[in-house]
Amino acid sequence: MEKNIIKPKTLPGFMELLPDEQILFNEMKQKIQNSYEKFGFLPLDTPIIESADILLAKAGGETEKQIYRFMKGESDLALRFDLTVPLAKYVTQYYQNLSFPFKRYQIGKVYRGEKAQRGRFREFYQCDIDIIGDGELSIINDAELPSVIYSTFKELGFDKFTICINNRKLLNGLFESCNLKEKSADILRTIDKIDKIGKEAVIKELKDEQIEDEKIDLIMSFISINTTVEETINELEKLNINNETFLLGLDELKELVKYIKIFGVPETNFKIDLTIARGLDYYTGTVYETFLDEYRFLGSVCSGGRYDNLAEYYTDKKLPGVGISIGLSRLFFQLTYNNIIKANKKSTAEVLVISMVEDFSKPAEIATILRNNGINTQIYAEQVKVKKQFKYANSLQIPYVIVLGEDEIKNGRVSLKNMITGEQEALTIEEVVKKIRNI
Amino acid sequence: MEKNIIKPKTLPGFMELLPDEQILFNEMKQKIQNSYEKFGFLPLDTPIIESADILLAKAGGETEKQIYRFMKGESDLALRFDLTVPLAKYVTQYYQNLSFPFKRYQIGKVYRGEKAQRGRFREFYQCDIDIIGDGELSIINDAELPSVIYSTFKELGFDKFTICINNRKLLNGLFESCNLKEKSADILRTIDKIDKIGKEAVIKELKDEQIEDEKIDLIMSFISINTTVEETINELEKLNINNETFLLGLDELKELVKYIKIFGVPETNFKIDLTIARGLDYYTGTVYETFLDEYRFLGSVCSGGRYDNLAEYYTDKKLPGVGISIGLSRLFFQLTYNNIIKANKKSTAEVLVISMVEDFSKPAEIATILRNNGINTQIYAEQVKVKKQFKYANSLQIPYVIVLGEDEIKNGRVSLKNMITGEQEALTIEEVVKKIRNI
Repeated sequence: MEKNIIKPKTLPGFMELLPDEQILFNEMKQKIQNSYEKFGFLPLDTPIIESADILLAKAGGETEKQIYRFMKGESDLALRFDLTVPLAKYVTQYYQNLSFPFKRYQIGKVYRGEKAQRGRFREFYQCDIDIIGDGELSIINDAELPSVIYSTFKELGFDKFTICINNRKLLNGLFESCNLKEKSADILRTIDKIDKIGKEAVIKELKDEQIEDEKIDLIMSFISINTTVEETINELEKLNINNETFLLGLDELKELVKYIKIFGVPETNFKIDLTIARGLDYYTGTVYETFLDEYRFLGSVCSGGRYDNLAEYYTDKKLPGVGISIGLSRLFFQLTYNNIIKANKKSTAEVLVISMVEDFSKPAEIATILRNNGINTQIYAEQVKVKKQFKYANSLQIPYVIVLGEDEIKNGRVSLKNMITGEQEALTIEEVVKKIRNI
Repeated sequence: MEKNIIKPKTLPGFMELLPDEQILFNEMKQKIQNSYEKFGFLPLDTPIIESADILLAKAGGETEKQIYRFMKGESDLALRFDLTVPLAKYVTQYYQNLSFPFKRYQIGKVYRGEKAQRGRFREFYQCDIDIIGDGELSIINDAELPSVIYSTFKELGFDKFTICINNRKLLNGLFESCNLKEKSADILRTIDKIDKIGKEAVIKELKDEQIEDEKIDLIMSFISINTTVEETINELEKLNINNETFLLGLDELKELVKYIKIFGVPETNFKIDLTIARGLDYYTGTVYETFLDEYRFLGSVCSGGRYDNLAEYYTDKKLPGVGISIGLSRLFFQLTYNNIIKANKKSTAEVLVISMVEDFSKPAEIATILRNNGINTQIYAEQVKVKKQFKYANSLQIPYVIVLGEDEIKNGRVSLKNMITGEQEALTIEEVVKKIRNI
């Protein structure tokens, strides 16, 4: 067979990490998972490939263009582009087996064939939680999610972040009261851009959409409310908008704010931001976005909201839900690229066992004792100079090295070297176990 | 927009679990990961999609037929069908950034468009570890892997399993000594079937391959050696096969056996099985298969071996390696389908907080305190009868329920119900935390 060397490369837009980065990434993933489970969310792991007609039941436009879709034999298949559509499918399919409210988390890869650019990935992790009700779902659930966001980002090591909340009913009610209901989707999309394009540009776009000045004034005075949670609610009441949807939204917002505090989110970590609309038509009530205060340029790091109908394309059952999502791959990239976090662990091992003698019996025995005592231990079993073995320990930044030479074996002790301080001690294996366990 | 209801379904050959099964699956996955990390293996998470020319550099025949391959724009893409080819790509690509021996684990989904049948999946998890040397790799590494297998299956709750080892050089040397080198691949494939088709059928197939009777006799007397580890080595020596490859294989086997024991694998959990060849041309030395003694019909649950050249299609560097793989999806299916293991946890929460009063402030406060004390806690926030709330707790088998009624709130205590014993106590929240933490 002729040998044909192919230069290996990873596809553009696909994240592939070095081990130290992967350790950090996995730690973050694990923290998110632990945090989700702390609130009683159940794990799901749906397939990455689904039947195209299922995945695309609702999609259209941009999504359909980005999707990875292909034939395999007679089957028209597609890779999931989010975790919400598979959830809708799942909840409908296993409805009889689930207990409602159904709380699930899913952490998994999704696929979008976007134009590759820095920080935009075609394969990326989403970390989603959703609470799905059967027919109804209390607003208390909307108030619990900021508590999950708070707990998760604290766990990830952040203190200064702001969970911004809003309610789509306020915006919708405002539009209804102005007779702008038909244009509401367009207006929402415009408002949603205020952070990027600024107030003046938004006003200009609204004028371009043929909206009367006094209505633009009302909309702008609405979205310009930017004060404390309590004051915002006062100001909203003072707008005196006598529209049913608006008043319902205001009531929901009041309930939400009341319970967010009780669920332990400090007032420094959340606020009402009436400019948040989350462009999607999907959301019908509460909406969330989360910003790292010192790195607001990263955009929202955790978003979501309330929707009336999770699975309307699959069932006539009304399944309202509320959920949030963390785009972990993008977040990880941004945090490392901007030096906000940094990989600081190059090994999963706490100890490396190396040998100065040819027979590896004693090192193997020592490594086994350490492992049996719950200490992650690696061996270096190649017959090379001790210097090279230490170089290996250094390159992996393994905190402790156990060296075994003839003397050590004779004395029934090992030489334990702390690779950070350089300190070296001759200890029995029991002493080593005790010492490392206590750290 | 007209509503078009699509009946949701999951593709055949794609595993999708209910939450209780998913909890069990995730527990197994976590145990495997912990066990791999105990030996210092580093995590990797390569993309599921790769360039088709990269993935198929080596493939051919069956693999190529099964692969999910498709165009996206101008790109010829494929889904990975194992984790070894991506590893070969990775090690070549990041060679300069890695420390050798490079020990990595990867737990992830792979894709094969096999004929769907029970227990055969088109999307399934593989849990792989490999140790890759730069130029050389000591046989000690081959001896460490059975220790990883042992530790992992013990962790998974098994006691009675046998790690079967062999060395391909013994077989190859045997064939060389019989002048059957050219036919060795065919013969290996035939021998590999002995477990399924029996000795007589193997002899018949070898006769069909035009092999002389005396040679078949030697081959059969070789693969019929089935005794203790020590005796097997004696018998192999007594065969008196004076072939360099054979003798090298015998030396390697002796070393392997010596160190496997030192690495803590009891003699009851491993044996030499000279019939194991692992059909693939890939392996060049040590090979492993693992069987659950009481469920041998499941086939090997963990297999692998030593190979000379991980990445010969991507680089001229010689990168020998040794690795094993657990096919977790298939294993999980078999274990649950045959009632060997059973999902026994329907919730991630230890406590459910329910309320008999309309205002949810106190329940929200209590839930938050429990969570802040590290106790996984779920709330039931819907306004329904208490009976229905208890039904919910029961359906999710949440071990404890905290009930808050007007009396409890007045007294500053909560009612904690043990859902297994039915026992109910009025406790302060501090007492609840203490009690649940101590369990």
